[in-house]
Amino acid sequence: MKLWDRGHNIDKQVLDFTVGDDYILDKKLVKFDCLASIAHAKMLGRIGILTKEEVEKLTLELNNLIELDKKGKFVIEQEQEDCHTAIENYLTTKLGDLGKKIHTARSRNDQVLTALRLYYKHELHQLKNLLDDLIRSMTEFDREHGSTEIPGFTHTRKAMPSSVSMWVTAFIDSMTDNLSMLDNTKILLDQSPLGSGAGYGIPLELDREYTADILGFARVQKNPIYVQHSRGKFEAALLNLSGMIMFDLNKISSDLILFSMPEFGFFELPEEMCTGSSIMPHKKNPDVLELIRAKYHVVVTCEYQIKHIIGNLISGYHRDFQLSKAPVINGLEITKSCTGMMTHIFSELKVNAENCQKAMTDELYATAEVYKLVQEGVPFRDAYRRISKRY
Amino acid sequence: MKLWDRGHNIDKQVLDFTVGDDYILDKKLVKFDCLASIAHAKMLGRIGILTKEEVEKLTLELNNLIELDKKGKFVIEQEQEDCHTAIENYLTTKLGDLGKKIHTARSRNDQVLTALRLYYKHELHQLKNLLDDLIRSMTEFDREHGSTEIPGFTHTRKAMPSSVSMWVTAFIDSMTDNLSMLDNTKILLDQSPLGSGAGYGIPLELDREYTADILGFARVQKNPIYVQHSRGKFEAALLNLSGMIMFDLNKISSDLILFSMPEFGFFELPEEMCTGSSIMPHKKNPDVLELIRAKYHVVVTCEYQIKHIIGNLISGYHRDFQLSKAPVINGLEITKSCTGMMTHIFSELKVNAENCQKAMTDELYATAEVYKLVQEGVPFRDAYRRISKRY
Amino acid sequence: MKLWDRGHNIDKQVLDFTVGDDYILDKKLVKFDCLASIAHAKMLGRIGILTKEEVEKLTLELNNLIELDKKGKFVIEQEQEDCHTAIENYLTTKLGDLGKKIHTARSRNDQVLTALRLYYKHELHQLKNLLDDLIRSMTEFDREHGSTEIPGFTHTRKAMPSSVSMWVTAFIDSMTDNLSMLDNTKILLDQSPLGSGAGYGIPLELDREYTADILGFARVQKNPIYVQHSRGKFEAALLNLSGMIMFDLNKISSDLILFSMPEFGFFELPEEMCTGSSIMPHKKNPDVLELIRAKYHVVVTCEYQIKHIIGNLISGYHRDFQLSKAPVINGLEITKSCTGMMTHIFSELKVNAENCQKAMTDELYATAEVYKLVQEGVPFRDAYRRISKRY
Amino acid sequence: MKLWDRGHNIDKQVLDFTVGDDYILDKKLVKFDCLASIAHAKMLGRIGILTKEEVEKLTLELNNLIELDKKGKFVIEQEQEDCHTAIENYLTTKLGDLGKKIHTARSRNDQVLTALRLYYKHELHQLKNLLDDLIRSMTEFDREHGSTEIPGFTHTRKAMPSSVSMWVTAFIDSMTDNLSMLDNTKILLDQSPLGSGAGYGIPLELDREYTADILGFARVQKNPIYVQHSRGKFEAALLNLSGMIMFDLNKISSDLILFSMPEFGFFELPEEMCTGSSIMPHKKNPDVLELIRAKYHVVVTCEYQIKHIIGNLISGYHRDFQLSKAPVINGLEITKSCTGMMTHIFSELKVNAENCQKAMTDELYATAEVYKLVQEGVPFRDAYRRISKRY
Repeated sequence: MKLWDRGHNIDKQVLDFTVGDDYILDKKLVKFDCLASIAHAKMLGRIGILTKEEVEKLTLELNNLIELDKKGKFVIEQEQEDCHTAIENYLTTKLGDLGKKIHTARSRNDQVLTALRLYYKHELHQLKNLLDDLIRSMTEFDREHGSTEIPGFTHTRKAMPSSVSMWVTAFIDSMTDNLSMLDNTKILLDQSPLGSGAGYGIPLELDREYTADILGFARVQKNPIYVQHSRGKFEAALLNLSGMIMFDLNKISSDLILFSMPEFGFFELPEEMCTGSSIMPHKKNPDVLELIRAKYHVVVTCEYQIKHIIGNLISGYHRDFQLSKAPVINGLEITKSCTGMMTHIFSELKVNAENCQKAMTDELYATAEVYKLVQEGVPFRDAYRRISKRY
Repeated sequence: MKLWDRGHNIDKQVLDFTVGDDYILDKKLVKFDCLASIAHAKMLGRIGILTKEEVEKLTLELNNLIELDKKGKFVIEQEQEDCHTAIENYLTTKLGDLGKKIHTARSRNDQVLTALRLYYKHELHQLKNLLDDLIRSMTEFDREHGSTEIPGFTHTRKAMPSSVSMWVTAFIDSMTDNLSMLDNTKILLDQSPLGSGAGYGIPLELDREYTADILGFARVQKNPIYVQHSRGKFEAALLNLSGMIMFDLNKISSDLILFSMPEFGFFELPEEMCTGSSIMPHKKNPDVLELIRAKYHVVVTCEYQIKHIIGNLISGYHRDFQLSKAPVINGLEITKSCTGMMTHIFSELKVNAENCQKAMTDELYATAEVYKLVQEGVPFRDAYRRISKRY
Repeated sequence: MKLWDRGHNIDKQVLDFTVGDDYILDKKLVKFDCLASIAHAKMLGRIGILTKEEVEKLTLELNNLIELDKKGKFVIEQEQEDCHTAIENYLTTKLGDLGKKIHTARSRNDQVLTALRLYYKHELHQLKNLLDDLIRSMTEFDREHGSTEIPGFTHTRKAMPSSVSMWVTAFIDSMTDNLSMLDNTKILLDQSPLGSGAGYGIPLELDREYTADILGFARVQKNPIYVQHSRGKFEAALLNLSGMIMFDLNKISSDLILFSMPEFGFFELPEEMCTGSSIMPHKKNPDVLELIRAKYHVVVTCEYQIKHIIGNLISGYHRDFQLSKAPVINGLEITKSCTGMMTHIFSELKVNAENCQKAMTDELYATAEVYKLVQEGVPFRDAYRRISKRY
Repeated sequence: MKLWDRGHNIDKQVLDFTVGDDYILDKKLVKFDCLASIAHAKMLGRIGILTKEEVEKLTLELNNLIELDKKGKFVIEQEQEDCHTAIENYLTTKLGDLGKKIHTARSRNDQVLTALRLYYKHELHQLKNLLDDLIRSMTEFDREHGSTEIPGFTHTRKAMPSSVSMWVTAFIDSMTDNLSMLDNTKILLDQSPLGSGAGYGIPLELDREYTADILGFARVQKNPIYVQHSRGKFEAALLNLSGMIMFDLNKISSDLILFSMPEFGFFELPEEMCTGSSIMPHKKNPDVLELIRAKYHVVVTCEYQIKHIIGNLISGYHRDFQLSKAPVINGLEITKSCTGMMTHIFSELKVNAENCQKAMTDELYATAEVYKLVQEGVPFRDAYRRISKRY
C-alpha cells in the first residue's frame, strides 16, 4: 500500500511509468532513511507525540532493518514504489498501528530529501578518501619517476622541456583544489531538511534542531521552500564537483593514451590493464583509459540533465525532481570508480626513460637559446627573430 | 573466454570497469546479432569458406538461440562481457570447432555495429507505430472535443480566442512532421555495416551486398572508416528525432498541467492517472504528465552525452564509443513509453466545456474589435491605439 | 516608436534589457522582412484591404529599402528594437498613413517568423553550395593523394593498413549523407508561417496560399499554434544538421592535428595557414584546425541552448524565444565559415608519401597473416592465437 | 605586427578566421593586461633585466594607456588580433626598443591568463555587490509584504498555506548560499598565473611571489601545466556559480510570471516594466521576467560550451581555449545584468492582498485538519484517510 493511497484503483500502466527505477535506486537510501526515521521518532518522543516506549520499539525495529539491509536481505518491491513505503510497511507489519505513527509530522518528500542529503554527505566522505588515495599514488609516482625529462607540448606540438614531475604535479595540485571544492560542497549541503514537510512546513511544533543534531547536520535548513528549491541546486553542485574531478581524469587519460603509443613510448601501461582485439592479434588497447576519458562526458551530462530538469518550474515540489536521482547516483558512482581506477593505474604505470630521452630534441631548447641572447643584452623580440630563422 | 583473449591474466577490477552494463544492455541485441550471424554464415558459405552443411548447422543453432532468447532463457554472464562472446561461446559448446569459424572475416566491432543498426531499424519501426497510435488518439480527441472554445495564451497571458481543435491539431501536425523525420532518419541509417571489420575492411573478398540483402538493408555502407565514424553520428540522429518527439510531449504536458489546475479547469485528468500526497489528503497530482515533461530533458541530455563522447577523437574505433549504448537504448525506451502513455492520456482526457466557456472573457476579443474598425477604414495603428485605451 | 507602444513611459533600463542584440542580429533579416512585406501587401491588395495603387507604392518603397540595405545604408537604431519596427518607421516616414497599413492583418511575431524562415532557407542554400565545394575539394585531394598507404588506427594504436583514399572517402560519404539531411531539413521547414498572426490566426479572411506562393514556400503551415511551436523545433533541427557537419570537420581536424605532428608527418599543413608562438621561435601551430575542432562544441551547445530555452513552457509565444536568434545565427555562420575553411585546407594540404611509407610497419599486417592461415584451413580463433604470440 | 610573426605571409582568410571576436572581447581586458604588465616590468627591474629608469618609463606609459582606455580612446585593430599585441605595439611606438623588452620572460599565454584572472576577480567582486543589493531589495520586500498569506503549491496544485515571507525568504537564503559559493570560487581562482610562460615555465629566475603580491593575488599558482589546465576548469567554476544564481532568478521569474496572471493576481508588475503586443491592444506582457527565465539556459549552456571545448585534449595550451573567452564574458555579463534587473523588480513589485486572501481556500487546510485529529490521538494514516474522503 502506497503512502498516498486514497483507496482508488491505480492504473497499472501508470504505476509502472511513475515508479521507474526508484525501487532499485533506493537500495542506496534504505540505511539513511532508517537513520532519519530514528531521529524523527526520537524527536516525536521529545515533543510528546510518541511515548518513550514507542520510540524504543521503533528505534529497535529500524536498527534491525539497517542490519537486514546490510546483509542484502531487505527487498523493495516495485509496487511499494520506493524505500520509504517499504520501510513503513515493514514497521507496520512488525509494530501494527505504531508503524503508522512514524509518518506523523513528516511527508515523503521530507524523507526523500533527508535520506538523500545523508547519502550525499556519505558519498562526499568516500570521495574524499578516494582523492586522498589518488594524490598519494601520484605523489609516489612522482617520487619514483619525477626526475625524468619529457617534452612539453602546446598545440599538440613539441614546445619546451618538461618533466614527469611537472606533469604529475599539475594533477596533484588540481586534485588538491578539488579537495577544497569538495569541502565547500559539503559545507553547502550540510543543512538538515528534516521537518520541512511537503515544502511548506508542518502544522505542529517540531524540534528541528534536535533531529539535525542527532543526524550530524551542521545546521537546520529553515525555509521549507528553500529545502525544495535547493534539491536540484545541491545535486547540480555535487555533479559539478564530480565533473571537475572527471575533467582532471579525462586529461590524464588523454595524455597517457597518446604518450603510451609506441610512436612516443614515454609511458607504459601494464599489460594486465590492456585489452585486445577480436580480429587483430597484435593489439594492446588502453580501454580503461578510454573509458575514463569518455566517462567525463557521462558525468557532465548527468549534471546537464539535472540543470535541465529543474528549469522553468514554479516553486514547490514537482514529480520531475524524482528523475534527478538516477543522474546523481550514477554520476557519483562513476566518479568514485574512475578515481579508484586511476589510483590503480598510477601504482602500475611505468616510465620509459630511454624513449623520453630520445624525444628531447633540439627545438625544445629554442626558447632557452633566445633567453641566452636576452641575457647577453639582445632585446627579446630581436633574439626571437634571430633564433626563429633556424626552424 | 573473451573474443580477444590472448592468454594473459586479466585484472579483475579492470574487467568490472570495462564491461560496465554491456552484459545487461546487450539483452536487446541477442536476436539481432543472431540474425546478422546467420547472414554472415550464409555469405561465408557463398564465398566458399564454410561448406553448405556448416552453414546449415550454424543457422539451425542460431535460430535455436533466438528461440531461447525469446523465452528469456539465454543469459549473458558478466565475464562474457557482451552478447557477442556469449553467442560465440554457445555455438562453440554446441558445434565445437565450427562455432569458432563464425568469427572468420568479422570483428566484434562489425558485430556490434550490425546488431545495433538492426536494432535501431526495429526501434524506429516500433516508434512509427506508436506515433501512428498517438495521432489516431489525438484525432479522436479532436473529433469529440475540438469545437470547444478556449482562450489562446501568449506570454502566459490571455491573448485571443482559440479552440481545443486548434490546440490538438497543432500537435497532430507536429507529430506528422516527426513521422517524416523518422522516415528520413531510417533512410539515413539503413546502410549495412557488416563486412567493415574493425574499421579498415577485411583482407578477404566478402560479398557485402549479399549480407545486406539478407538483412534487409537498403544499401551497403561501403567505406569502413565511415562505418565507425557514423556510429555516434547516427545515434545522435536517432536521439535528435526522439528529442523532437519528446519536445512535443513536453509541451502537451506543460499545457495540461497548467490548464487542468482547478483555477483554469479546461481539462480533467482521469483520477486513476493521478497520484496523491503522503501528507496532504486532498491532492490529485498530475505525476504522469510531470514525468513526461521531465523526460524530455532526460532524452535530450542522452543526445548530448553522445555528442560529447564522440568529439575531439581521431578516426577509428575507440572504446569510448561503448558508452553510447546506454544513452541510445534509454533514450529510445523513454520516447516509446512516453508516446504510448500520451496516447493513453488522450483516450481518457476530458474537456470541461463550462470552465472553458467561463474563461472566454472580453479582452480575448480586443484584436477582433481592432479589425472591425480596420474594416470600417481606420488605419490599423490608430484602431489599435483606440482599443488599447480600454485595457 | 515601437509597434506595441501604448503611450506609457518605458523604463530605459528595461528597454536595454529587453532589446538585447536584436537590433544588430536583425541586419541579416532586413531583406527577408521586406520580401515578406511585399508579399503581404500584395495579398492585402488581392483581398481588397489595400488599393492597387497602395500596393504599388508599398512595393516600390520596400524594394528601395532592400537596395539601401544591400549598400549597408539602412540602420536599425537600438530604440527601434528590431528590423520590423525600423522598416515600418521607414515606410511611415515615406508614405504617411499608408505605412501604418502594412501591419494590418499581421503581428510582429508573424513578421519575425516569416523573415527567419526565409533566412533559414537562404542559409541552407548557401550551406549546400559550401558542402558541394568541400566534397569537390576532397575528391580532388583523393585523386591526387588517395593511393598513398597510411596506417589505420583503432584505440589510437596502429591497427591495419589504410590509405589516404579510404580516409578522405569516409568524409566524402559522410558529407554526402549530410547533404541528404540538409535536403530533408529544408523540406521540413519549407512551410509558410505568414498569416498566423500572434499564434491564433487573424480575424480576417487572408489568402495564405497566395503569400506562400509569392515567397516560394512549398506549403502553408496551417495551424497557427504549430507555427509558434515549430520555431524552436525547426531551429533545433537546423543546428542539429549544423552539428552533424561540424562533427565531421571536428574529426578531420583531430586527424590532421595528430598526423601532421612531426612524430607522424603523414600530412603537411601549408605554412601560411599555421601560426607561431610569441615565445617559442620554432613553433608552427595548427591553430586553424584547433579552432574548427573547438567550434564543433560551440555549434552543438548553440543547439542545446535552444532545446533548453523552449522546454517546460505552455503553448503560445513567449519572449524567451527571442533568445534563440543569436544561437541560430551564430551556429549557422560558424558552420558555413568552417566548411569554407576546410575546403581551403584540402586544396593546400600535402601528403608526405615517405613518412607514410615508413609508418607501414609489420604489425599492421598481423590480421592479414591470420587470414592467410585461415585460407590454409586453420580455424580463425586458432590462427589468431598463433599469430598473437609474435606480438 | 603580431607577437608571433616570423616574417611569412599570413593568409588573410586564415587571419579573419583565427582572430574571431578577440579584438572586441579584449576591450574588457586592456586595463588588466596593463596592470599585469606594470607588475611584470617591476619584477624585471627587481631581477636586473630592466633598469630602474626603464621600469619607470614603462609604468608611466602603461598608466597612460589605462587612462586612454578608461576614456574609450584605446582601439584594438582586428589585425592586431588582441589587446596584448595592441598594447605592445603602443609601447613600442612610444618607447622604441624598450617597448619590445616588456615581453621578456613572458608569453602571450601568460598575459592572457593573468589578465583574465584579474578580470574574473573583478567580476566576482561586482557580482558580490549586486547580490548584496538584491538581498537587500528582497529583504525590504519581505518587510513590506511578507505577512500576506498565499497558497503554497506542489505539483502546480494548491497544497498548504504559505506566505509572501516564506516565499521571498527562500530566495534570500538561496542567494546567501550563493554568496558563500562566490567566496569559495574567488578563493579557488585567486592564484597568480604570471610567470608560467607558455605552460612550461621560463628559463630565467623570476620572482613570481613579487608579481603575485603587486597584483593582489593570494598565492602563486606554481605548476605551469596546472596553470594551463586550470583555465577551463576555473572558467567552468565561474559559470557554474553564475548558473546557480541564474537558477534562483529563473525560479523567481517562473513564480512571478504565473502568479501575476489575472487568474491568480497575487503579484502585480509595474506597468512600466511590461511590454505590449503589436496586434493585441489589451496585452501587458512580462517580457523582462521571460527573458530572465530564458537567460538561465543561456548561462548554463555557456558553461556546457566550455566543458565541451576542453575535453579529450592532452595537456598544454590549445588554440581551442581561445573560444572560452566569449562564453565566460557573456555568461558573467548576463548574470550581472539579470541580478541587477531583479533588484529593480523587487523594488517595484506589488502584492495584491485581496487576491491572495481569496485564494486561501479550504483544501489548503486539509493537512492541518489531519493534524488536529492526530493531536486528538488518531493515528496519522487513519486521520489522513478520514479527511481525504472530503476531497
